[in-house]
Amino acid sequence: MSAPTRRQLANAIRFLAADAVQAANSGHPGMPMGMADIAEVLWNDYLRHNPNNPKWFNRDRFVLSNGHGSMLQYALLHLTGYDLPIEELKNFRQLHSKTPGHPESHITPGIETTTGPLGQGFANAVGFALAEKLLAQHYNRPEYQVVDHRTWVFMGDGCMMEGISHEAASLAGTLGLGKLVAFWDDNHISIDGETDGWFTDDTPERFRAYGWHTIGPIDGQDADAIKAAIDQALEVTDKPTLIACKTTIGFGSPNKAGKESSHGSALGKDEVEATRKALDWPYPAFEIPKEIYDGWRATGTGSLRQAEWEQLFDKYAKQYPDQAAELARRSHAKLPDDFLARADAYIAKVQADMPEIASRKASQQAIEFYTGLLPEIVGGSADLAPSNLTLWKNAKTAVGDDPDANYVHYGVREFGMSAIANGIAQHGGFIPFDATFLTFSDYARNALRMSALMRSHVLHVYTHDSIGLGEDGPTHQPVEHLASLRLIPHNDVWRPCDAAETAACWKAALARQDGPSCLIFSRQNLKPQPRGKAEIEGIYRGGYVLAEAEGGTAKVILIATGSEVGIASEAREKLQAAGIPTRLVSMPCTNVFDRQDEAYRESVLPRSIRARVAVEAASTDFWFKYVGLDGTIVGMTSFGESAPAEKLFPYFGFTADHVVEAAQSVVEG
Amino acid sequence: MSAPTRRQLANAIRFLAADAVQAANSGHPGMPMGMADIAEVLWNDYLRHNPNNPKWFNRDRFVLSNGHGSMLQYALLHLTGYDLPIEELKNFRQLHSKTPGHPESHITPGIETTTGPLGQGFANAVGFALAEKLLAQHYNRPEYQVVDHRTWVFMGDGCMMEGISHEAASLAGTLGLGKLVAFWDDNHISIDGETDGWFTDDTPERFRAYGWHTIGPIDGQDADAIKAAIDQALEVTDKPTLIACKTTIGFGSPNKAGKESSHGSALGKDEVEATRKALDWPYPAFEIPKEIYDGWRATGTGSLRQAEWEQLFDKYAKQYPDQAAELARRSHAKLPDDFLARADAYIAKVQADMPEIASRKASQQAIEFYTGLLPEIVGGSADLAPSNLTLWKNAKTAVGDDPDANYVHYGVREFGMSAIANGIAQHGGFIPFDATFLTFSDYARNALRMSALMRSHVLHVYTHDSIGLGEDGPTHQPVEHLASLRLIPHNDVWRPCDAAETAACWKAALARQDGPSCLIFSRQNLKPQPRGKAEIEGIYRGGYVLAEAEGGTAKVILIATGSEVGIASEAREKLQAAGIPTRLVSMPCTNVFDRQDEAYRESVLPRSIRARVAVEAASTDFWFKYVGLDGTIVGMTSFGESAPAEKLFPYFGFTADHVVEAAQSVVEG
Repeated sequence: MSAPTRRQLANAIRFLAADAVQAANSGHPGMPMGMADIAEVLWNDYLRHNPNNPKWFNRDRFVLSNGHGSMLQYALLHLTGYDLPIEELKNFRQLHSKTPGHPESHITPGIETTTGPLGQGFANAVGFALAEKLLAQHYNRPEYQVVDHRTWVFMGDGCMMEGISHEAASLAGTLGLGKLVAFWDDNHISIDGETDGWFTDDTPERFRAYGWHTIGPIDGQDADAIKAAIDQALEVTDKPTLIACKTTIGFGSPNKAGKESSHGSALGKDEVEATRKALDWPYPAFEIPKEIYDGWRATGTGSLRQAEWEQLFDKYAKQYPDQAAELARRSHAKLPDDFLARADAYIAKVQADMPEIASRKASQQAIEFYTGLLPEIVGGSADLAPSNLTLWKNAKTAVGDDPDANYVHYGVREFGMSAIANGIAQHGGFIPFDATFLTFSDYARNALRMSALMRSHVLHVYTHDSIGLGEDGPTHQPVEHLASLRLIPHNDVWRPCDAAETAACWKAALARQDGPSCLIFSRQNLKPQPRGKAEIEGIYRGGYVLAEAEGGTAKVILIATGSEVGIASEAREKLQAAGIPTRLVSMPCTNVFDRQDEAYRESVLPRSIRARVAVEAASTDFWFKYVGLDGTIVGMTSFGESAPAEKLFPYFGFTADHVVEAAQSVVEG
Repeated sequence: MSAPTRRQLANAIRFLAADAVQAANSGHPGMPMGMADIAEVLWNDYLRHNPNNPKWFNRDRFVLSNGHGSMLQYALLHLTGYDLPIEELKNFRQLHSKTPGHPESHITPGIETTTGPLGQGFANAVGFALAEKLLAQHYNRPEYQVVDHRTWVFMGDGCMMEGISHEAASLAGTLGLGKLVAFWDDNHISIDGETDGWFTDDTPERFRAYGWHTIGPIDGQDADAIKAAIDQALEVTDKPTLIACKTTIGFGSPNKAGKESSHGSALGKDEVEATRKALDWPYPAFEIPKEIYDGWRATGTGSLRQAEWEQLFDKYAKQYPDQAAELARRSHAKLPDDFLARADAYIAKVQADMPEIASRKASQQAIEFYTGLLPEIVGGSADLAPSNLTLWKNAKTAVGDDPDANYVHYGVREFGMSAIANGIAQHGGFIPFDATFLTFSDYARNALRMSALMRSHVLHVYTHDSIGLGEDGPTHQPVEHLASLRLIPHNDVWRPCDAAETAACWKAALARQDGPSCLIFSRQNLKPQPRGKAEIEGIYRGGYVLAEAEGGTAKVILIATGSEVGIASEAREKLQAAGIPTRLVSMPCTNVFDRQDEAYRESVLPRSIRARVAVEAASTDFWFKYVGLDGTIVGMTSFGESAPAEKLFPYFGFTADHVVEAAQSVVEG
């Protein structure tokens, strides 16, 4: 063939997508076929990346928020030269292939973030753009733009309908993220059919109301129009840009183009062949002519761009060695060498000081300390800074262009916040934490799941962790949340019982780089517990003997977390006084405890001791895992009530005396 | 005093709020003080309600979406004559008062819906307005507007920032809900301070982009301006209206007005007194002059309005007796007399037919059947109708003015959908169901919690309930969801194992009027299980012996749900063949099982039989509750994978052989 046209280059995407979906007999061909021309122009003319090194720090970030169109991205990665051979595309959606149904960042080179749950990729992209902006503000010097890249995001009607698009777009507008460009695939089709019946927004007007620069609608099948729109987008540097692209879903398919039937199923063998004819694409499935590959390959320019950047960075490093070293350290997600030692010294001091404060207050002190060690911490709260206690002395707002900006006032946008934090973490160079009341983790729940699935290094701070918040009542009192967060695979949920455990769980969460942690704190003051070195070490094992039975082998084990450790400790003293040797186990993180070897777990909870009482001001159901059918649980089996906390604890049975009774019932029973 | 001015009437709200918050030393005085004038004009000049009968069906609905300002609503209810005496206001935020921290519909007469979690009240209000529209379309006749009322909603900046405001407003625009009026309390203050740093939307422009009629910004402290705006709102009947009201948070407080310090804490004794002086309000706390009460009382006009409506309805009933009887039945949430008998006959037939179909398909057949019995069913899906299988023969879209409209294409808006469904249920006259993939229940999670807290009669249909959905992969495969939904108090989670259990769980959920139910269905086909009458009865007890051990007392009990019952049944046969008497328990709803008396639970799961295996393609942790420390669980301990379902089941250990091994390990152990 002669030099391919733009349309022919785009058609390579269309057929890789249609053929792979056909081979799997599963997937979404319509979107890749509709957005192929946009992708072709963007990737061939604008995207700065290096297929040889998907982790090159200054690459542009590309996010497919409408992740069901995963074959579009796999085709792009394959064609431009990433380590994604054609065999992987033939294995689309098969077990352990690198081409799962939706793009997964920990599986496929070149995938920046896991997408599929609609709207979240867009919010991740806002996080990417924000991360770039904050790093650029901090590290760049007039002659050295060492951090200088764009974030491009594809999104569909589904992303636009989701509430999170509002939260993320609104905040992106306020932050003026000028290097973020979103392409809206305005194809007027969603799964239920033509969108007239459920989606009639004037979306560009909506985005203008957020302070965005908007372009279009343009013809999303016209390469020249796409190029002109992107050029126009690049001219505006103080606002994010939305390009509304009218496209035809399933473009090229004679019988299914423009119809929902092309959205989520294979076109069918005959229709794929009819599309081959219609688009004049004579090549068999998964065979791409060399000329087409040549037209796509980005390995040469990619290496060149990275080399140019490395030269720039070397010069920068000579002039600004400290900044360069720090940026390099951060970009490789390496903690400072002295981090662990200094953290341990801090924790030892907190243990020695024994302050009687709320764990949210202890958390704020920990934030004050750890931000002093780690400039990569970027914090924020969903408009609850004075309640979550997430501000620290040197916190500087991300609005504006303060070079030391490190705090995001996320506004009342829990879901957007956590998805943006995921994007910041996936970008690299930061350890983000976000914050709200524990109950409102509900609003962000699927973003937490995505943190965990991606094994993102994100910290979620949740305060007001039980009926202990008092008068705000059951709408604000978590009951089921602790257990349900613990159920998310890879998600570590910490609920410390005092200031020392709080300082330690912050350390654990900052040091754990292969997954997210939820840090759960009380509104109310908590009694400090005595600990020796062994007990402090025990914290990092998730559960440990805080106080051993005295006067013989334990006849009963009390297991407690957070604010209930103090109550259980009192109960233990009463039981000991009554002649019942009682072991007290503090269990700040069941997830970490479960990862310990069996010998350790047995040493804390011996199988032979079945008289066990779990005490936690939350759902009882979860605790059967540790107390079995012979133990009992002092917990919540209903919603809370609106009243002062000091009334609610006894009302719901959280008193030492009630724990004693519960313990006696299992000892005798 | 002489006839009070409007401002004086409004000041009664201000001081009831400030004094009650001061007495509790907890609460949010700022919003009630800021919105008092708007509330005064609305309630005294427009709101059609009857304090003598808070349940009068044709009343206007008033929703306080910024529910932290609960004292505004309690003051209004008290002043206009609802059964909320001043003692209750003095008891604000105390245990078992009728004035909890946030408004709760099952506690306080006149509260239409429980609010506090921001944005959801607004979405509830969209549900109220939609319910009114659908009932009016169906029952009204040109001369008889028997359903004719408005929905008014107050919302704050927080509601506006939440993503759910986008979802609900967008759909309300598409639906053209002309009798919905929203008042936005544009006070420029949220908890973190002045909103410039996190909320810079042009909100009226945003709402215009949704197709709303917008008014203002007006001076929200000027009664004349408020009245003019409401009059203007009433002129537009084909679009919902947003009135943007500039207000001063904490209006009247000399030192805290316009500041975040008035938002969420008591003003302080001195500041309350200073406010008394500033507003010239000489009356002691909780003492309201008779003239002020007289200016507010709505009991007389309320009774009159209801009487007028009853006269109209009587005439309507004479001319349209069937319609009137049906509307009366629906408005009293009474099922038809023959409902249970007909449902049972249907279920018996499904049991006899033994179809081998997916439970989502069985659910669609059940919907077909039950919608024939219950015109009050209003269904919908978040753009997954062809996957959730939620459409039925006579489903008619709510867009437009079809008198038989009964289906909402919610678009890709899971959270908005469930909160709107809550509003429809709280309105009365409907039993709503909504639907999405089980994984995306995450997006709606706090609305499910609110369904449960309010004990709303809502059904949530969740299909694609496990790794059984196959290729879409871990982003779409639920793991932790079954357990985490079961943890929400009052929420019944059904996961039927075949078509008969599916038909039965639909019946149970429709008949259960004091709380929500989640109905969880498979994508893939499920083998039908044999059942006699006793086993069918067992379904309604949540868990039952589906197949008894043969050849002696059970040596092991298999407990399974949904798609794993078939696998467990095969395993049971193999165990029996190997000489191990094995009981099989089907447990379609653990929540209902837990509510059975101890004797029944003991009959199904005798304490003496500790060799137990739970089988469910979901989080293992939950099942320790039923198998204890001596049993074992065949479940999921990680995220899923993208691959065909028939590969995934064996890969994750869901085979009869693996269940047999697990059973042998606990029998021997």
